[in-house]
Amino acid sequence: MYSGMHNGGAPVLIVGSVALDSIKTPLGQVTDALGGAAVYSSVAASFFTPAMVVGVVGEDFPMAHIDFLASRGINTHGIQVRPGKSFRWGGSYEFDLNQAHTLFTELNVFADFKPTIPPAYRSAEYVFLANIDPELQLEVLDQVEKPKLVACDTMNFWIENKQDSLIEVLKRVDVAFMNDAEARQLIGTSSLIKAAGEIRQFGPKTVIIKKGENGAMMFCDSICFMAPSYPLEEVVDPTGAGDSFAGGFIGYIAHTNDISERNIRKAIIYGSTIASFNVEGFSLDRLKALTQRDISDRYNEFKQFVFFEPM
Amino acid sequence: MYSGMHNGGAPVLIVGSVALDSIKTPLGQVTDALGGAAVYSSVAASFFTPAMVVGVVGEDFPMAHIDFLASRGINTHGIQVRPGKSFRWGGSYEFDLNQAHTLFTELNVFADFKPTIPPAYRSAEYVFLANIDPELQLEVLDQVEKPKLVACDTMNFWIENKQDSLIEVLKRVDVAFMNDAEARQLIGTSSLIKAAGEIRQFGPKTVIIKKGENGAMMFCDSICFMAPSYPLEEVVDPTGAGDSFAGGFIGYIAHTNDISERNIRKAIIYGSTIASFNVEGFSLDRLKALTQRDISDRYNEFKQFVFFEPM
Repeated sequence: MYSGMHNGGAPVLIVGSVALDSIKTPLGQVTDALGGAAVYSSVAASFFTPAMVVGVVGEDFPMAHIDFLASRGINTHGIQVRPGKSFRWGGSYEFDLNQAHTLFTELNVFADFKPTIPPAYRSAEYVFLANIDPELQLEVLDQVEKPKLVACDTMNFWIENKQDSLIEVLKRVDVAFMNDAEARQLIGTSSLIKAAGEIRQFGPKTVIIKKGENGAMMFCDSICFMAPSYPLEEVVDPTGAGDSFAGGFIGYIAHTNDISERNIRKAIIYGSTIASFNVEGFSLDRLKALTQRDISDRYNEFKQFVFFEPM
Repeated sequence: MYSGMHNGGAPVLIVGSVALDSIKTPLGQVTDALGGAAVYSSVAASFFTPAMVVGVVGEDFPMAHIDFLASRGINTHGIQVRPGKSFRWGGSYEFDLNQAHTLFTELNVFADFKPTIPPAYRSAEYVFLANIDPELQLEVLDQVEKPKLVACDTMNFWIENKQDSLIEVLKRVDVAFMNDAEARQLIGTSSLIKAAGEIRQFGPKTVIIKKGENGAMMFCDSICFMAPSYPLEEVVDPTGAGDSFAGGFIGYIAHTNDISERNIRKAIIYGSTIASFNVEGFSLDRLKALTQRDISDRYNEFKQFVFFEPM
């Protein structure tokens, strides 16, 4: 029984990959399982607010996956179905679960993806540009009207190969997500604090650095916020952790329609909460069974994990 | 002008290395500077409580260093002076400041170090066994009377070469400090949570995992506490970070004479505070100039860094 807290929230537009993932971790494996950054982030957002997804799949994409997204209140009208096969990614994780090893990448229909934002989506107040080619992220920004908040994610491949376009994207977003290695690589410094400061110079008012099991750091005007990650004894499959973090984040922001720093801190904890559940199962398995009660219990646990008394 | 808050605190006994360090980092270098785990941890503790150090130096050890320790209210009567040269360590740090590269280790008088605890120290209620051969740590434990709390630190070398003795130590301490890689190595698991849980099975009620720039985690009965590290734009010299963290921790515990979980959380933040100052300069340079006001300001900043509102 799905009982979301999303009624009344502003919808969030999410653009990114929709994929079939084949994943092997020390605890098992799956083949052609539902995946992709837009899927993880929209399902994460759907716990808080209605999401609208733009992506592309091939004719082989199982209808059941689309049905699942729809059952989460996600508008899937923006998922184009193109002749050919769906995007597939194969990866494995070994002892160090922070490090994905790509086994194969079959772009298929994703190779020619041009994001077309349906007219009904263009007035979205909240937009998440999941990790895709920054040139496509720019095309999305050209199509949306006046969003209140735009967040983006990226990856090392674009930092290495399309850095100029990526910086154009950064100039036009409010919140930039990046993992620690990416932030260091983009700025060319070992200091995360320096890296985040220089990324903010490009444009985004808020920079959120993802550090996997070491939590996340948020940088804004004068202060930074540090969130731990939830201490899990066992991670089943880290795939989608960053995407579900960002999706939970923007879903909560849209739900509350509040972009103040204090609310951004809360959104980071909600994002961490969703991400921590996500890695407890393969693909979207854990999120499929997640309840609002699970979310609020874990949010409260986070509060206890960081508590210490004043001087 | 030294104005400590240590009046009234219980004294802490610290046993470990006293060294002359030659260090090179991207921001500079020093030769034969004051160092060693017992030095960093006792100076850190001295901001909160009187410390008593047991260690060994050679005849070449500069008297000025002993004078400095004494000026911090540290009892140096337990530092033996032996014929020969002092222990020297040379290390460098490159882009990744979390990783020390050892250039040379000259044990000198430290090779035959036998910790002899002066009679006046044996009744110490708080004991910190800094990183030395676990067999020597056991000898210390045989000499002390009934401490209220014993904490220990160690390193990968002892995990690899003296694991049985190390486990004997763990059976007899209340608090074990270890860094993340060491905890994983000792237990043979990628999961820090699992590793900490199994280390607690050996004996220590409290396990504190140091994660460098990613903060620290404390594990006790049922809950864990996660502390960030202070976000420094620039780390001048990471040497002694773990030792000053542990020293600040036990110094605060001894000062307050309170080993409750809530006080342990505070002590971890005080330890992180001292460690964050320590890495702002080479050797003990920054700690030499540190004031109680600096410490309380930074403690309060930690409070803000982790703050988020309840649901």
